[in-house]
Amino acid sequence: MGRFFFHPEPQLGKIVLLSPEETHHLTVQRISPYTDILISNGKGELYRGVFQGKNKGHAFVLVVEKVEKELPPPSLCVWQSFLKSPARMEWLVEKLTEIGATEIGFFPAERSVKETVSKEKIKRLERIALSACKQSGRIWFPVIRVCTSFEEFLGFVTPKVGAVFLADPFGGENLLEFIQKRGIQPPVTLIIGPEGDLTEGEKQKLYGRGAFPISLSKKVFRSETAAIFGAAIISAFLGVDNASKHQDTWMQGKPG
Amino acid sequence: MGRFFFHPEPQLGKIVLLSPEETHHLTVQRISPYTDILISNGKGELYRGVFQGKNKGHAFVLVVEKVEKELPPPSLCVWQSFLKSPARMEWLVEKLTEIGATEIGFFPAERSVKETVSKEKIKRLERIALSACKQSGRIWFPVIRVCTSFEEFLGFVTPKVGAVFLADPFGGENLLEFIQKRGIQPPVTLIIGPEGDLTEGEKQKLYGRGAFPISLSKKVFRSETAAIFGAAIISAFLGVDNASKHQDTWMQGKPG
Repeated sequence: MGRFFFHPEPQLGKIVLLSPEETHHLTVQRISPYTDILISNGKGELYRGVFQGKNKGHAFVLVVEKVEKELPPPSLCVWQSFLKSPARMEWLVEKLTEIGATEIGFFPAERSVKETVSKEKIKRLERIALSACKQSGRIWFPVIRVCTSFEEFLGFVTPKVGAVFLADPFGGENLLEFIQKRGIQPPVTLIIGPEGDLTEGEKQKLYGRGAFPISLSKKVFRSETAAIFGAAIISAFLGVDNASKHQDTWMQGKPG
Repeated sequence: MGRFFFHPEPQLGKIVLLSPEETHHLTVQRISPYTDILISNGKGELYRGVFQGKNKGHAFVLVVEKVEKELPPPSLCVWQSFLKSPARMEWLVEKLTEIGATEIGFFPAERSVKETVSKEKIKRLERIALSACKQSGRIWFPVIRVCTSFEEFLGFVTPKVGAVFLADPFGGENLLEFIQKRGIQPPVTLIIGPEGDLTEGEKQKLYGRGAFPISLSKKVFRSETAAIFGAAIISAFLGVDNASKHQDTWMQGKPG
């Protein structure tokens, strides 16, 4: 699959308007009218469309046929407490999207240096995720969540089938050993605290919601390194071990 | 272990001079004379020293005792073809150092956009690796290599015990499945080509030196994402599976 453009609701036989940003990308790529392009809705569908022309900053595209429908990827949700550096948050969104996280969330913790993330920054994170999807050919886009409080974040951590891992810099069972012993099934959640770690109170709240403490390394990882390291291992196992099972679930109409 | 300072040859009972850069870090941390500090030689040894004072941009430190001697980590060498973006090369050095790569190399490939890396940039990569070591408490520093030709790089790829993996964006056995089936022993080498992939000729030369093609994901990874993803998985397995074996090797005086 080549690069594609995003539209939330491509409709067969209809003309859709691309956003100014997507139109800009199309312009940069010097795509001429009556050229075929690919459009994804970010929900696993890919369409072939014909670029008709531009007007007032919007590209007009005739949606011709559905060319691909992809199973949803195994659910892998990574929660990272706010990072001090916006560049590191952006980098993390790019990398987690590429390696297949389906939800990427940020939350404030007691020891987070940063307390809020502006709406502009959230928009920017979403654009970075979209760009990473185009880059890596992912037509299921991850959900980006930014919580305004720890309590709001807790609401997303619900005990369910699968596993909720809490990276503990000071102990816990090794993640790889855990997976080798017990296997792993989606949905999987991985929670990473701030550089100064979560407080005992915050950890207890997460344990109360079914989180299991795991260790990633005997060395100290930067917060975002822990996220990418843990997500890479989980993603590799979900890809290998769950391909068939995942398909079964899909067939029963209950995707990941 | 807390943060430490670097000196290539701390000698017990002697006074050593820290480099201007290390002295600057000491100044920034407002360390007063006659305070204990930690010094590592980057080769697995950690010393306690007493900061004596500064003169002409150098901190003087009396080396008092050896406080730690660490086994060398399992050998994990990651070779990445030159990346267009210096920021992405720097980021990669930081992350690979944190997750335990013992050698980090860059090489030019036929389809590399960038053809050279300046001496200043190499120095900067070394500083980033040092900083990542301090951050993560690694007292074995990785070797940073930057080759000026593909042939020079080939010279470093020698068939040996262990595994030489070549990430193939278009096929190959899945890395995790390979490890699960056959296990993995250090030394391990992971080679990542440029965004446009290695040429068939380049690949053949690597196969001739024992490289084995592996697949990391069904999706397309950016070049540096492939490096970090593959290195995370290998590092996790080397850490878990080789802890005891590694120690045996060390005991026989033949560290990994």
